[in-house]
Amino acid sequence: MLAAAMGSWTRPLCKCCASLPVQPQVTLELSENISVETKRWLMSRIQAEKIAGGAELMVHPGEDDEGNMLLVSASRHVLLRAAEVLGLYKLYKDGSMISFCYRDRRNFENSDNIDEFLTLAECQFIILRSLGNIKAVDEKYVPGYPTTSLYPGESIFNRLQKSKILLGFYPLHQEEMLSELEKCWYSHRKLTLQPIDSIYRYYGGSVAMYFSFLEFFTCSLAPMAIFGTTVVALSMDTVDKCILFSVFNIIWSTVIMELWKRHSFVLSYTWGTLQMNSQFEEPRMGYEGPMGTNPITLRHQPYYPAWKRKVKIWLVSVPFLCLFLAIALYGTFIFFRLEAWVKGFYSEHENCWTCVLYLPSILHALYITGLNILHKMVAEVLTEWENHRLESSFQNHLTVKVLVFRFVNCFSALFYISFYLQDLELLRKNLASLLILTQIINQFTETLVPYFYKILHPKRAGLKSCTMENAPEIDKIKLQGQKTPFPGMFDEYMELFVQFGYVSLFSCIYPLSALLIILNNITEIRTDALKLCHLFQKPFISPAANIGVWQTAFETIGYLSVITNCLLISISPQVKEYCAESDITSNSLLIWAIGVEHALLVIKITLAFAIPDIPAWVKLRIDRVEYQSLHALKHKLFEEDKGPGRETEEKEGWPGEIVRSDSADSSLHASNRQLNLL
Amino acid sequence: MLAAAMGSWTRPLCKCCASLPVQPQVTLELSENISVETKRWLMSRIQAEKIAGGAELMVHPGEDDEGNMLLVSASRHVLLRAAEVLGLYKLYKDGSMISFCYRDRRNFENSDNIDEFLTLAECQFIILRSLGNIKAVDEKYVPGYPTTSLYPGESIFNRLQKSKILLGFYPLHQEEMLSELEKCWYSHRKLTLQPIDSIYRYYGGSVAMYFSFLEFFTCSLAPMAIFGTTVVALSMDTVDKCILFSVFNIIWSTVIMELWKRHSFVLSYTWGTLQMNSQFEEPRMGYEGPMGTNPITLRHQPYYPAWKRKVKIWLVSVPFLCLFLAIALYGTFIFFRLEAWVKGFYSEHENCWTCVLYLPSILHALYITGLNILHKMVAEVLTEWENHRLESSFQNHLTVKVLVFRFVNCFSALFYISFYLQDLELLRKNLASLLILTQIINQFTETLVPYFYKILHPKRAGLKSCTMENAPEIDKIKLQGQKTPFPGMFDEYMELFVQFGYVSLFSCIYPLSALLIILNNITEIRTDALKLCHLFQKPFISPAANIGVWQTAFETIGYLSVITNCLLISISPQVKEYCAESDITSNSLLIWAIGVEHALLVIKITLAFAIPDIPAWVKLRIDRVEYQSLHALKHKLFEEDKGPGRETEEKEGWPGEIVRSDSADSSLHASNRQLNLL
Repeated sequence: MLAAAMGSWTRPLCKCCASLPVQPQVTLELSENISVETKRWLMSRIQAEKIAGGAELMVHPGEDDEGNMLLVSASRHVLLRAAEVLGLYKLYKDGSMISFCYRDRRNFENSDNIDEFLTLAECQFIILRSLGNIKAVDEKYVPGYPTTSLYPGESIFNRLQKSKILLGFYPLHQEEMLSELEKCWYSHRKLTLQPIDSIYRYYGGSVAMYFSFLEFFTCSLAPMAIFGTTVVALSMDTVDKCILFSVFNIIWSTVIMELWKRHSFVLSYTWGTLQMNSQFEEPRMGYEGPMGTNPITLRHQPYYPAWKRKVKIWLVSVPFLCLFLAIALYGTFIFFRLEAWVKGFYSEHENCWTCVLYLPSILHALYITGLNILHKMVAEVLTEWENHRLESSFQNHLTVKVLVFRFVNCFSALFYISFYLQDLELLRKNLASLLILTQIINQFTETLVPYFYKILHPKRAGLKSCTMENAPEIDKIKLQGQKTPFPGMFDEYMELFVQFGYVSLFSCIYPLSALLIILNNITEIRTDALKLCHLFQKPFISPAANIGVWQTAFETIGYLSVITNCLLISISPQVKEYCAESDITSNSLLIWAIGVEHALLVIKITLAFAIPDIPAWVKLRIDRVEYQSLHALKHKLFEEDKGPGRETEEKEGWPGEIVRSDSADSSLHASNRQLNLL
Repeated sequence: MLAAAMGSWTRPLCKCCASLPVQPQVTLELSENISVETKRWLMSRIQAEKIAGGAELMVHPGEDDEGNMLLVSASRHVLLRAAEVLGLYKLYKDGSMISFCYRDRRNFENSDNIDEFLTLAECQFIILRSLGNIKAVDEKYVPGYPTTSLYPGESIFNRLQKSKILLGFYPLHQEEMLSELEKCWYSHRKLTLQPIDSIYRYYGGSVAMYFSFLEFFTCSLAPMAIFGTTVVALSMDTVDKCILFSVFNIIWSTVIMELWKRHSFVLSYTWGTLQMNSQFEEPRMGYEGPMGTNPITLRHQPYYPAWKRKVKIWLVSVPFLCLFLAIALYGTFIFFRLEAWVKGFYSEHENCWTCVLYLPSILHALYITGLNILHKMVAEVLTEWENHRLESSFQNHLTVKVLVFRFVNCFSALFYISFYLQDLELLRKNLASLLILTQIINQFTETLVPYFYKILHPKRAGLKSCTMENAPEIDKIKLQGQKTPFPGMFDEYMELFVQFGYVSLFSCIYPLSALLIILNNITEIRTDALKLCHLFQKPFISPAANIGVWQTAFETIGYLSVITNCLLISISPQVKEYCAESDITSNSLLIWAIGVEHALLVIKITLAFAIPDIPAWVKLRIDRVEYQSLHALKHKLFEEDKGPGRETEEKEGWPGEIVRSDSADSSLHASNRQLNLL
């Protein structure tokens, strides 16, 4: 249907692609009062050849009443070619994963069937990148908007989005695939593993990585849960148990993070993202700077020197973070003072309400929540102001800022109770209530907040009813546009991070944590999946090779847990009792605790070092491919060496060109680390 | 002279090279009773074309009386071509360092003058590698030695060396260059910086790296020495001083290791070894295994699976190391018992000799030295038995083994004194005597041992006199062969490592350490240089980018120093006095010490993270080159896209091949990390 309508608008570059109906992949939402001139210009730029600064994509006006929609799709050859440039690794006929090569495409599995060969997420990501790559050529301003200036080489889509001519773009759901995915993902009642590969195909790297990590984390909690439940059931409240549980805990946290690293390598190897090079990442939308000469490209373009960013980070962002931390810590301190005061007040005035007792906790919870929201806003402004060039670097800096703050906010009260008050009974109660309460609250808010958000945006809701007069396909697309944009995986990872903190930092105090978290996460998987499939717009997800900065965050918690566990044991009443019985002074106990702590840290580092990050079979396959490419190069060297012109050119230089310089030079790079590992 | 004599023997591949006299670069020493058949076969293999499994080198029989010498040299084109394969980075006409490309050689600085373009060390290393690459083609055995079998593809030189037909090979000194180097290196009396670049040109990467590190380390000790001397001169023996000195020490050790990392990046960038790929490293001589199918190359060749090596390392080598450590620690323990006993004995029996008092120390020194020698022998056997495939991996494993053992052996007594006996006065005395005595002993042995070694090898000395009847050039070469082979930089680095340990682990006890070490190292530079230039054969040195495993070793000492300094302060009498005055219990003092220790560790990690490893200007240049290569590739994509055949091929696939697959694919690799950093 769409392909037929496109006839007059699109000029597909090869006939074989145009002859099949093409499903739209991405929708662009333009401002409502867009002129035909601007729309036509935009379409021509999207269709234009790469050499003319275009994207060579197929585009179709949405044919809705408002006329502010464009549907974009890509032909098979454009997609395949982009896959080569992107450096995607695909399954070769010999069963290995190698960097896709367009010329050699027939030897790759499924390359004739584009829907099998490239995943939906990959196709949509390629289209997003191609759109972002459309550069202004000789336009001085956006046609129809004389005030919106352009400079040669500027990304048109950046400019359009900044000046609100382009309201947004979102990839489209494919209903059949989605309903099939839902069926095997969460709509059945049985407890099965998730279809991670299907999730990858539909949603892309980081989403699939998150769900895989969630599943892995939940499963790996099982031994902790069994151990913890046994301990509680048998009520073995002795020193030995405490120490045993802590040591188990420390080894467990190290081993599961290492195993996860291995597992994520396997996943990204089979997805072809492990060895993918990410050098083609484009500057992010918000990147700005005075026009200057980029010292690397030597071109005249907005350029923001890295040292200025560093100055901003160290002189403004870091102090700001410290200030927030101080405010949060001070709040916790006030809370404990207030609570003590209220307790005293309550015991003195017996006729006042009991709920007064809960006032400090409620105030503190509100304070923390408010501070969290405020800090996230400030962190976003600061990170934006730091002016990062790449989206990934922006995200990493934002994540680290929010992560550190949330961590302190979540755990400061627990640290205060355990190491200042040294009241392990209170700590146990707090842990239990935190685990149970926050999980219930989270489950509710995670599902309810998106609904409330919709109700609070009546403009979109109004739009919803009036557009229902278009063709049903167009209405479905419009409906998707009205959904909330996907907010990213930050809050989901944060939840897991806090859970991991509870389990590994304090679990020896409350051994049931692991069990509670498992129960929570089994429902978490379903609610997260439901949210992703129905409450949000489909996100653009780049092919991801790992969970990024979160890996470091979880590992850091692992190292912290050695310190907390050793301290918790040394201050536990059982150990103190034991020491009193055996005439051990608190001084020598402390020395022992420090010794054990350092020894455990060394064991942890050794263990992390001894477990190889990449599984042997993945490494073997990668090495084999690298060896083969080197071998092919050597063969080529010989071949060209034998070639004609050997005798005649003797005087001039080396007989016969060895090999085409660039290919030789860079093939060597390709086979980096090659023979080291044979 | 040599070139003329070569006429009948060598067949240089291009006339322009043969027309100039060629200086021999490498000498092969064959067994004395070698047959003419074997020698002739060997020469033909060395001269043979690459395609026939040869090395395309020039070879000349030494024309000595015994006839067991071959002189090897390489033509300019062979060297340039090998430099491309090796992936050496050289100075381009625009001032940047880029991977050398033979076809584009005219645009590289000095590429017409081979002596300027490639350093002597690089040339000799290239010849060594070319010789090692000579593979058996269809020979079933070595001609003249029917019992020495060969399999197709086996490295001939490995086989010849194993079966003692080839006794050794060594690169030759170039007298003019050497005397010039000596002049500006160590034979003048002024205190100047070393000519590191000339050392690099003459001796190659790891030697120059060592001397540069030695110089850098000595210079960076200056602030410590000034601070320490001031402290001693003003006799500020207070708590503040102790703490101040320790904190300074910890920051100093972090900062200098980070600065050295930056400095070594600058060095290796200017040498062109920073970005060099090392994937072409060949298996080491000793690598053996049953004939099997290599799972990576799928070829029939000696193959030793990695898991077996791991089993050997973890189940044999590590326990053996632990056993040796236990023996060494037990010895130290016995020494302290013995010393206490001797002291008691001496005070009881006043008529015995005073020298009895020194007996335990002498016995302990002998014990430690003997154990060191024994352990090194065992470590060498074990590492050989672990059967590492690469020389670098063999060296790393050997270094780590010996390093850990030596560290424990050197420092266990000091740790025992400081943390078990807590006798800081004894520690101070011990440190002073160790620093002064071992340095004097080292200076002597380092210069004397090679002389003694020569005297203990009468066979070589005998040879020396009888060969004096050859032509003077040949005799000079023979003389070089009689020198001791270069034993590697291990002992030199070990000395610096121990020095660094004294300074950073215990210096707050004996602030004069830094000054003593500076004085030692100024002479050390001269003796090491002298040894290298005159006592040893010139070594084959591969282009090195850093100091390898030693960087990690020094950094580990840095982390250890945080722990020792905090502990030393908390047990120092001044602090104890202060605590007694201010009513601080030893328990809370310990808690403070632990807190400070953890805080300092965090500061150290932050500092190491905050100081960028690569200097900004080097990073900028690397990024610029990577950007340019990417840009060139994109331009090529456009060009080939425009090319003919666009319209006609539309049906078949993408119009016109985008780019030659391999070059596109791998150029992407070459420009890895490219845009991330713009």
